[in-house]
Amino acid sequence: MYDLQYSSALLEKAVSELSHLPGVGSKTALRLALHLLRQPEDETMRLTEALKHLRLDVKHCKICHNISDEDVCPICKDTSRDQSTVCVVENIQDVMAIENTQQYHGLYHVLGGIISPVDGIGPADLEIDSLLERVTGGGIKEVILAISSTMEGDTTSFYISRRLANYPVKVTAIARGISVGDELEYTDEVTLGRSITQRTPLNN
Amino acid sequence: MYDLQYSSALLEKAVSELSHLPGVGSKTALRLALHLLRQPEDETMRLTEALKHLRLDVKHCKICHNISDEDVCPICKDTSRDQSTVCVVENIQDVMAIENTQQYHGLYHVLGGIISPVDGIGPADLEIDSLLERVTGGGIKEVILAISSTMEGDTTSFYISRRLANYPVKVTAIARGISVGDELEYTDEVTLGRSITQRTPLNN
Repeated sequence: MYDLQYSSALLEKAVSELSHLPGVGSKTALRLALHLLRQPEDETMRLTEALKHLRLDVKHCKICHNISDEDVCPICKDTSRDQSTVCVVENIQDVMAIENTQQYHGLYHVLGGIISPVDGIGPADLEIDSLLERVTGGGIKEVILAISSTMEGDTTSFYISRRLANYPVKVTAIARGISVGDELEYTDEVTLGRSITQRTPLNN
Repeated sequence: MYDLQYSSALLEKAVSELSHLPGVGSKTALRLALHLLRQPEDETMRLTEALKHLRLDVKHCKICHNISDEDVCPICKDTSRDQSTVCVVENIQDVMAIENTQQYHGLYHVLGGIISPVDGIGPADLEIDSLLERVTGGGIKEVILAISSTMEGDTTSFYISRRLANYPVKVTAIARGISVGDELEYTDEVTLGRSITQRTPLNN
């Protein structure tokens, strides 16, 4: 609705670029642009420099494909971590989420997506071959598939487990079950069914 | 919550800068940064260039203080507009809002804020002296005060109307009354009272 009324082409351009960001409409974009105008110049400079460096200089770890400032990421470099366990995840957000649990001390392998025929993403578009190479390289005893429990996620897990079938590694998947704090009564039946068939000994 | 788990300092820096923006928390900032990483490099370049140019190159119109790419904004330059009427507003968003109504064809004067002792903003911090200079300059017959109907806004309107009292201009304020589409029953009593005392002839 603000389309026609800009008195500045620079403002209009900035608003238009900002509104390409996800979740940012033209009103929010205008608010962000005007905020920057009210702040000291070097606030905008710091923001634009940080975004430019991020986009141009960030790398992907050549081992696990997590993002990293160097060729090998801090997680892969960390020799105190369990080098024999690799956790396979869809993207770098999942690495962060698992790291935040502080329950995992092995390495990661970031697929860069999941198999999704609808979006035209097949196994060849993902870092699956490089996972097999890592396993072939030796030293890996367990591959944990930590992939979303959706149709596409389960397809991806199944595909990877099939590809790994002939390798001397244990392949596991993260547990599906009722969430901590959930009431049985309101848990969907598929999840509840899984949590019964995959019950664990109480002394675990 | 994602504070400790970045595997890239570049990402962490970008997220930190993005989360200085209003309404952007660290989770949204991360989502924006990862979005840029997934897009072609020149999308980020276009965004950062647009923000940089906006911040460094945008000017304020030396007549009305609206933002502008040149010394005088397109509205002040537009000779087809009524040069004898000046609408006084708090900020440039208000100019856009009034322009969008397509009901006003005069000029503007952007105060750059309103009088707010709580925030330490006094009359001297606003473009009030320059408004008086414009009026002194001649040619202006009416000054419309289009300022929010809040305590601070009313104070500002009152202050400006007092300062203008000795000048040969008509000073008006935008009408306060019930919103178009509003039901009487649910209108607050102050607004409803104002709309009765300031009733207008129906043939208007």
